[in-house]
Amino acid sequence: MSEQIVYFNGRMMPESQVGISIHDRGLQAGIGVFERTRTFNGLSFRLDEHLRRLDRSMRVTRVPAGMSIAEIKERTLEVLEANKGHLGPHDDFSIAHFITLGVAGNPTVIIFTQKIAFTTFANQYITGAHVISSPVEQSPISFIDPKVKTTSRMHHHLALQFVRNVDPDAYPLFLDHQGNVCELNVSNIWIVRDGVVVSPPGRSILHGITRDVVFEVAANAGIPTEERDFQVYDMVLADEAFFSGTSACVMPVTKVNGLQIGDAKPGPIVGRLQQGFCELTGVDVVQQALAHLAK
Amino acid sequence: MSEQIVYFNGRMMPESQVGISIHDRGLQAGIGVFERTRTFNGLSFRLDEHLRRLDRSMRVTRVPAGMSIAEIKERTLEVLEANKGHLGPHDDFSIAHFITLGVAGNPTVIIFTQKIAFTTFANQYITGAHVISSPVEQSPISFIDPKVKTTSRMHHHLALQFVRNVDPDAYPLFLDHQGNVCELNVSNIWIVRDGVVVSPPGRSILHGITRDVVFEVAANAGIPTEERDFQVYDMVLADEAFFSGTSACVMPVTKVNGLQIGDAKPGPIVGRLQQGFCELTGVDVVQQALAHLAK
Amino acid sequence: MSEQIVYFNGRMMPESQVGISIHDRGLQAGIGVFERTRTFNGLSFRLDEHLRRLDRSMRVTRVPAGMSIAEIKERTLEVLEANKGHLGPHDDFSIAHFITLGVAGNPTVIIFTQKIAFTTFANQYITGAHVISSPVEQSPISFIDPKVKTTSRMHHHLALQFVRNVDPDAYPLFLDHQGNVCELNVSNIWIVRDGVVVSPPGRSILHGITRDVVFEVAANAGIPTEERDFQVYDMVLADEAFFSGTSACVMPVTKVNGLQIGDAKPGPIVGRLQQGFCELTGVDVVQQALAHLAK
Amino acid sequence: MSEQIVYFNGRMMPESQVGISIHDRGLQAGIGVFERTRTFNGLSFRLDEHLRRLDRSMRVTRVPAGMSIAEIKERTLEVLEANKGHLGPHDDFSIAHFITLGVAGNPTVIIFTQKIAFTTFANQYITGAHVISSPVEQSPISFIDPKVKTTSRMHHHLALQFVRNVDPDAYPLFLDHQGNVCELNVSNIWIVRDGVVVSPPGRSILHGITRDVVFEVAANAGIPTEERDFQVYDMVLADEAFFSGTSACVMPVTKVNGLQIGDAKPGPIVGRLQQGFCELTGVDVVQQALAHLAK
Amino acid sequence: MSEQIVYFNGRMMPESQVGISIHDRGLQAGIGVFERTRTFNGLSFRLDEHLRRLDRSMRVTRVPAGMSIAEIKERTLEVLEANKGHLGPHDDFSIAHFITLGVAGNPTVIIFTQKIAFTTFANQYITGAHVISSPVEQSPISFIDPKVKTTSRMHHHLALQFVRNVDPDAYPLFLDHQGNVCELNVSNIWIVRDGVVVSPPGRSILHGITRDVVFEVAANAGIPTEERDFQVYDMVLADEAFFSGTSACVMPVTKVNGLQIGDAKPGPIVGRLQQGFCELTGVDVVQQALAHLAK
Amino acid sequence: MSEQIVYFNGRMMPESQVGISIHDRGLQAGIGVFERTRTFNGLSFRLDEHLRRLDRSMRVTRVPAGMSIAEIKERTLEVLEANKGHLGPHDDFSIAHFITLGVAGNPTVIIFTQKIAFTTFANQYITGAHVISSPVEQSPISFIDPKVKTTSRMHHHLALQFVRNVDPDAYPLFLDHQGNVCELNVSNIWIVRDGVVVSPPGRSILHGITRDVVFEVAANAGIPTEERDFQVYDMVLADEAFFSGTSACVMPVTKVNGLQIGDAKPGPIVGRLQQGFCELTGVDVVQQALAHLAK
Repeated sequence: MSEQIVYFNGRMMPESQVGISIHDRGLQAGIGVFERTRTFNGLSFRLDEHLRRLDRSMRVTRVPAGMSIAEIKERTLEVLEANKGHLGPHDDFSIAHFITLGVAGNPTVIIFTQKIAFTTFANQYITGAHVISSPVEQSPISFIDPKVKTTSRMHHHLALQFVRNVDPDAYPLFLDHQGNVCELNVSNIWIVRDGVVVSPPGRSILHGITRDVVFEVAANAGIPTEERDFQVYDMVLADEAFFSGTSACVMPVTKVNGLQIGDAKPGPIVGRLQQGFCELTGVDVVQQALAHLAK
Repeated sequence: MSEQIVYFNGRMMPESQVGISIHDRGLQAGIGVFERTRTFNGLSFRLDEHLRRLDRSMRVTRVPAGMSIAEIKERTLEVLEANKGHLGPHDDFSIAHFITLGVAGNPTVIIFTQKIAFTTFANQYITGAHVISSPVEQSPISFIDPKVKTTSRMHHHLALQFVRNVDPDAYPLFLDHQGNVCELNVSNIWIVRDGVVVSPPGRSILHGITRDVVFEVAANAGIPTEERDFQVYDMVLADEAFFSGTSACVMPVTKVNGLQIGDAKPGPIVGRLQQGFCELTGVDVVQQALAHLAK
Repeated sequence: MSEQIVYFNGRMMPESQVGISIHDRGLQAGIGVFERTRTFNGLSFRLDEHLRRLDRSMRVTRVPAGMSIAEIKERTLEVLEANKGHLGPHDDFSIAHFITLGVAGNPTVIIFTQKIAFTTFANQYITGAHVISSPVEQSPISFIDPKVKTTSRMHHHLALQFVRNVDPDAYPLFLDHQGNVCELNVSNIWIVRDGVVVSPPGRSILHGITRDVVFEVAANAGIPTEERDFQVYDMVLADEAFFSGTSACVMPVTKVNGLQIGDAKPGPIVGRLQQGFCELTGVDVVQQALAHLAK
Repeated sequence: MSEQIVYFNGRMMPESQVGISIHDRGLQAGIGVFERTRTFNGLSFRLDEHLRRLDRSMRVTRVPAGMSIAEIKERTLEVLEANKGHLGPHDDFSIAHFITLGVAGNPTVIIFTQKIAFTTFANQYITGAHVISSPVEQSPISFIDPKVKTTSRMHHHLALQFVRNVDPDAYPLFLDHQGNVCELNVSNIWIVRDGVVVSPPGRSILHGITRDVVFEVAANAGIPTEERDFQVYDMVLADEAFFSGTSACVMPVTKVNGLQIGDAKPGPIVGRLQQGFCELTGVDVVQQALAHLAK
Repeated sequence: MSEQIVYFNGRMMPESQVGISIHDRGLQAGIGVFERTRTFNGLSFRLDEHLRRLDRSMRVTRVPAGMSIAEIKERTLEVLEANKGHLGPHDDFSIAHFITLGVAGNPTVIIFTQKIAFTTFANQYITGAHVISSPVEQSPISFIDPKVKTTSRMHHHLALQFVRNVDPDAYPLFLDHQGNVCELNVSNIWIVRDGVVVSPPGRSILHGITRDVVFEVAANAGIPTEERDFQVYDMVLADEAFFSGTSACVMPVTKVNGLQIGDAKPGPIVGRLQQGFCELTGVDVVQQALAHLAK
Repeated sequence: MSEQIVYFNGRMMPESQVGISIHDRGLQAGIGVFERTRTFNGLSFRLDEHLRRLDRSMRVTRVPAGMSIAEIKERTLEVLEANKGHLGPHDDFSIAHFITLGVAGNPTVIIFTQKIAFTTFANQYITGAHVISSPVEQSPISFIDPKVKTTSRMHHHLALQFVRNVDPDAYPLFLDHQGNVCELNVSNIWIVRDGVVVSPPGRSILHGITRDVVFEVAANAGIPTEERDFQVYDMVLADEAFFSGTSACVMPVTKVNGLQIGDAKPGPIVGRLQQGFCELTGVDVVQQALAHLAK
């Protein structure tokens, strides 16, 4: 099959022909911002919200794309259209936007699609994912506000190496300097207690687009939600826990630091939220992922 | 003139033919380490020390190059040899090494040379550079130890934008969470007080190779040196101040937060250290830089 | 009169026959959790809530009792029944549960009753208790989450010695590293401002069972309550203040750091809350305590 | 064989007859201090130094033994004499002193001996021990100064549970709030770099008696030593690492957070220090421990 | 024209005859508290609220005026009455209260009026004011609670000098140690996002009387308000921003750290709040200020 | 007797004629710097050092006197000469320099002399002074560097009120945010351990001129000195402790937080340092002070 098409600095071209300069400030120093949007049934989902967040990241970091959000959207849809033939059954795309400071004042803008690697996490829908306190703390606001989605993410790598050394199913749980639970390396963390779905407040976490969808889905399902600081203590004692992220949507979390959460099985509220995603997107995400395992 | 030659993942090739993949983890997430070594009269200087530090960065970050330091050195000398014809009078190279996590477990290794852009800082040898307290704090040890030279450097960009908004000759002065002076965005900071040359201790700064040379040059010149914490208070009241970096070697700093240091002119001890570099390297760095202004 | 009966590792025995091993990890290293429940008219009050908290403490600290909460409850009621004859007029019990890591992997479980020493605090219902900022800070969440009721409480001893040196009626007021008021050494602290009863939020304090009762009693009495961070500034300027604890229930606090709170007398809202406790438990706690002074 | 004899509150008695009261404040709240001294060839080693530290702990915590250090020493030697028959070949004692706040103002004083459990750590002399960053931070000075050897050590238990979940040969590495390496749960940590043996400074660690011996042994062997702050970065890049503790004396550490230190084998300087201990004490500690494995 | 009359330690006297002692503890050590109340159309506004805050400041700092708040109010009105003839068209007073520890135990009490210097800020109603992150952090609660309005304000001077060096229209933006936006040097800061007017919570800021009026005016105008922590990130991305202060009432803020807020023009919600002040006070503050520019 | 003469803004005048404006920024906001120099036998001591520190304070705070240090010295000597007749037997002067931001850009410069109030501290030479941990922390470097001697000292007042509530002989002991001992409200703190005199390092304390003299006197007397961080733990366990200040020179400290230091009596090293001061200044400071008690 032919290659996927990529938007790169004003042109559409086959992926293999795109080469980033060795002088690119994104490559050399992580000076860039990015987004990952997913499709459901091959259609983009919440693309506007993702691009608005991209715009916020660019303004705060002073890394401009040199083109409007409207134009980025247009190019995105073209890339999606160009590549849709690559999707097989049960497939969906992760749409990537990377904007870097580029070379000599000219920004680098890349838009591409990538098939979601469901096999890397599908089994966790059954067993639950695990989280382990990261020895690398959450990016302090006085350093880089974690609300900004930058490409300087070495801390994620360091934390992931640490926890994977312990448990190959584990994600690092980032805590702030006061010990509050913040987020995982790729997703937002949640607990369920006495029927209420709880997220850390927006102060010191990435404002996940999928996190917003969870609030929406919970509201539709009549499940109360709350934003408040909680600690590892509360995770250990939660009834259920899960993370929300663009690709996985709602993933149960069943262990923290080796301790079981609840009965260490995906719980009923997680199930209802997954069902809500299904209704909203028309895709049963869990079944879609498990279908890839079967292959 | 022909293009410079670059070492890229096992091959020597013209720079324009090197293209980094859009899937490179260095580009996407700043997961990489790097070095910048300079030449004097076209010959590499302290290359072994730079490569040892590169090795330390790779081990701590678990970003392996997949080749030995000895081999990296060999390739570096080949790149240097291949490009030496590009050096004009008063020119010298910055030799760059970038190692990233690469794509799908295969690291990216890039070695290239680049003519030092003396015009961007030459005039500061006359006027002195300026420093301004960065609102972005030094990378906390509990986040990423600042001794590691990673490619996740968004904080440098943020701080530089802030201070350049104030003064186009300014560099950001990074302070730790306790208010100790740490370093600038590209170099180590020093003060001179009562004849003693003082550096922040090694705890929370990049261990500059040029910083080591300053200790060596000072020892040769009989100038006492000391490593101890100091604060902005001490910079304001210093007799002289300077920064040390690979390209600029020893650069006088004459203002901090808009306040004059000493009489706001490059001072005698800075002059003696510059002279020491000249003797060690065979190049009068200040004259070399100024020659570029004259052009 | 005969001795009280104690439950100790599976057996009921007279108190004088219970001896803890010198190898007990609770004794040697404070590795244990505990509860103190009180009786009213000789009947346990909120025993289920106390045991649920005990369960939470055990799970978070990985100090298991080796028996179910249901069984602990049963044993507790047996101890209470066995000892009820020891209660004189105006007496009530403090029921103690201590679970330690024990010896060689076998946990130590102790359940005993103890007559409340009303004389040690009865007079404070008249004069009000005093609080003084502790030089020992609240246990940081990144050390041991203060929501866990462990037997490692040296900090309480250190703080108490400090403040008693100043004022024999004083309790240490624990503040967190940001200066927020947290709790006293044995109880939760509250202020009253403009008719609203305010507690520090649950983030960094013991979740007192009696604290929960205060919320309940206040709700019954139509007194609005709020959970929010406050500081010593707010205590000085409060209309009233009090602490809540298992034995004392609701105790007025009339001085902080030597400064009067309000007019330095027990206030009307404290009185209404005490009245609420009386209605809920059938015991006028203040009169019960004062009766012991009269003796 | 008969039981060991214990000193308990003024009396010598068989261990099985000693029973600590359920009202003991050491048991209930960890309000106590302690020491562990070891014997070599059955003779106490540095007993005076251990008792001086015990005295310091008692003064700072206001937990008095109610008897002089001289008397405690005398009783200690009596206990040792009484129990020496229990030592078999390759055996030695850990002598324990526990002083708690006791009951109703009467302190509890316990002195006992215990055969060192060499099998629990002997193999680590061959393989090296491992350390893992503890998610529980070092006790902050503003909480309880870690120089005090108190019996409130729940944080050790919590950290140990965390790291043993990862690696059964691991000890928790306690870091302070600034990310400086402090100590392990039972011992002091050291690194060796360029032939220099480095300990964290005394600010925020237990002042190990064995740590003092290491300084002494190193001086005798002409090995330079230094006290300075270091970080996990420095441990990863050290040539060797080890911990020092009363029972194990000098134990190589070969992994930190899963990363090899040096070539992950016990190194030459560790060997020379172990040899120095041998000369000082007349016991080859490594061989003594290994002899227990052989059994 | 004759001089203004000042109340000074029990007497009314012409300003030029008031001389503070060189031994005054307010002068020597900043041990004092103060208030600034303004008039509208020459009439005091919220004087009671200002004096209640003065009372709180005195109680917390133990700097008593030696006279009741009622008496201070009476003296204030006399000073106002005595000086009203000094007001020209478009003029209004700032009424100052300064209470210091005084000399030898006798407090210093000063009450005076001063014409508001509208020309120093009038133009900012058109262009918007600018704010820049202060390198001097907000007064930590563990140092001096920023809710107290003391005369020890060197930090304001230091921060103002720093930011004025950058931009003569800038005010320092004080952040707490966690990076939360707190306040400016003379006023409270606000942002507007999605139609909601947001203030930092009361924890770590001066409780501005004008801030209370903003809440009131917003409620009257049907504009929703919220108190929650926000960061520089949120200021950059706000739709509008403004500060509230006694003299300026509601002043648009259009730049933060050199970045535009919204379209960098005073926005509609700021306009509605200014209109609300006009209705409440009977004075169009913006027009009043601009009239002074015209002169 | 006639009044003392004061230098005030360019003029010499009797003290009663000096009146500071109510608009002075030093009075209103603590924006000023100061010095206190003492005389011995009526002659100034280390005046140059005090004025150099004044100069440093002025530069760092941007509060210029508008006259040179040489001129300030000249005026100082004139004030001293004018007032020398006021000294009785056993008397000496404290010479005060206060520089404030003044009024409307014109600085306020005040120089005056004041007889030292020996009776307020003389008795402490016999009993020793006491220190108590201040609940107000040392001024953080990120707030106002404590090396600057500003007139914004409300924190000293707050801390003093707190500790005097406990013990009328107590001074507040300021600790930094990490728990290191820094200084008292008016002086530098020292401990003596194993014959070594130890001062906190210069990082976060006022650089006392008398502190420098202590180093000098100790060197002369062959007493070793050291600058290193220590904590309350070390004070409790010190052999001796003392504070150094301009008026009291060397004052024994015999209690910390109610705990005895050593045997709670002024110790031999303190005695030798006092003797050294006597030799250096020609005045037996202790006898001079005690003579005032006798009166």
